[in-house]
Amino acid sequence: MRQWEKTYFPAESNRTIMAKIQFSRGIDEPAVPDVRLTRSRDGRSGTATFYFERPQALNKESTDEITGMYLIDEEGEITSREVKARFVNGEPVGIEATHVMKSPADWERFMRFMESYAAENGLGFTKSQSGS
Amino acid sequence: MRQWEKTYFPAESNRTIMAKIQFSRGIDEPAVPDVRLTRSRDGRSGTATFYFERPQALNKESTDEITGMYLIDEEGEITSREVKARFVNGEPVGIEATHVMKSPADWERFMRFMESYAAENGLGFTKSQSGS
Repeated sequence: MRQWEKTYFPAESNRTIMAKIQFSRGIDEPAVPDVRLTRSRDGRSGTATFYFERPQALNKESTDEITGMYLIDEEGEITSREVKARFVNGEPVGIEATHVMKSPADWERFMRFMESYAAENGLGFTKSQSGS
Repeated sequence: MRQWEKTYFPAESNRTIMAKIQFSRGIDEPAVPDVRLTRSRDGRSGTATFYFERPQALNKESTDEITGMYLIDEEGEITSREVKARFVNGEPVGIEATHVMKSPADWERFMRFMESYAAENGLGFTKSQSGS
């Protein structure tokens, strides 16, 4: 259950590149999301929607408030405030967070984050299950 | 079966951005692959492996020779020569193609292509099925 130890005391401590996601500042989220990408017709703006199943941040023991979704890498931080919980039988079981990109530069910044995050967490590109 | 018409006579002809994949020059491949990303420990180099199930390029009617995998967007072309067919009962049923990235610049170029390709084809980031 105490999965976060994996993050705080990493075995591979000599890795140079790190990309991580937080919902509360300073607390790394170990759950790895699916990320759906959509783009406007003209290709200039777009949306990345993150789906986390049973993330650490929703654990009952967790006392840290969810203040946003922070995508953190060596370049800095991308912040999204559009974070919603998904409930089943009154219990929060998932988090859906949205990052809106308004320009090609936003897209490129986001993809630089995802490049690191995807490679570190075994994510690849596949057809979105949930339609698009 | 003549899926390529979709590519040559697109309904949405006023789209400004186009990312496409070809196995023979000039022939767009309509099959959408899964793409697995892996990265070296130091984060500088990496590999993108493309899996195509029953691509057009392997159709019996197709007379065009597969000469490589060409990832084409408005910036230009990324070429890979590491293209292998997967056979079942002596019949080619899939294509596996590998693109090796040797520097952060290679990664960023590749992700710029994938940004367009993924958004146009409904690809998202998910945990690779086939491990990593």
